[in-house]
Amino acid sequence: MKKFKSEIKITLREGILDVQGKTVENALHSMGIPEIAHVRIGRFVTTEISAETQEQAFEIIDKACKQLIANPIIEDHFIELKEI
Amino acid sequence: MKKFKSEIKITLREGILDVQGKTVENALHSMGIPEIAHVRIGRFVTTEISAETQEQAFEIIDKACKQLIANPIIEDHFIELKEI
Repeated sequence: MKKFKSEIKITLREGILDVQGKTVENALHSMGIPEIAHVRIGRFVTTEISAETQEQAFEIIDKACKQLIANPIIEDHFIELKEI
Repeated sequence: MKKFKSEIKITLREGILDVQGKTVENALHSMGIPEIAHVRIGRFVTTEISAETQEQAFEIIDKACKQLIANPIIEDHFIELKEI
């Protein structure tokens, strides 16, 4: 059994209004940092996975993302895996 | 003036208890996905930055992270920049 480390970026889909991101952007502008725009806030999840192969590890974490970690209706997820 | 895109990974520091991550991990195990462990949940923030140089863009976004986007007491942040 091998062990893998996964890094998952979860982002709101294009076109979905990011209220939290907009609030942060407005706050940055109020604080005198006007150079920053298009702030979008997602989640960054790291896990460890036990699996026989990298393909199997990917299937396990992809299933977990679709069923629980991300909301596929409004979010995209991007998985990076490496053996540890 | 150039434009840069930043991707910022914000993670809880090692040793800080991640209650949300632990909850997700327990839920995954209850759902029949026991292969996943050490779930930790951070934030993934994307922005655009207007600056003269990549170094200047890094300084702007690093300042924004320290002042508002991340909490340096309990979180680390990792910035990736590319020109767009």
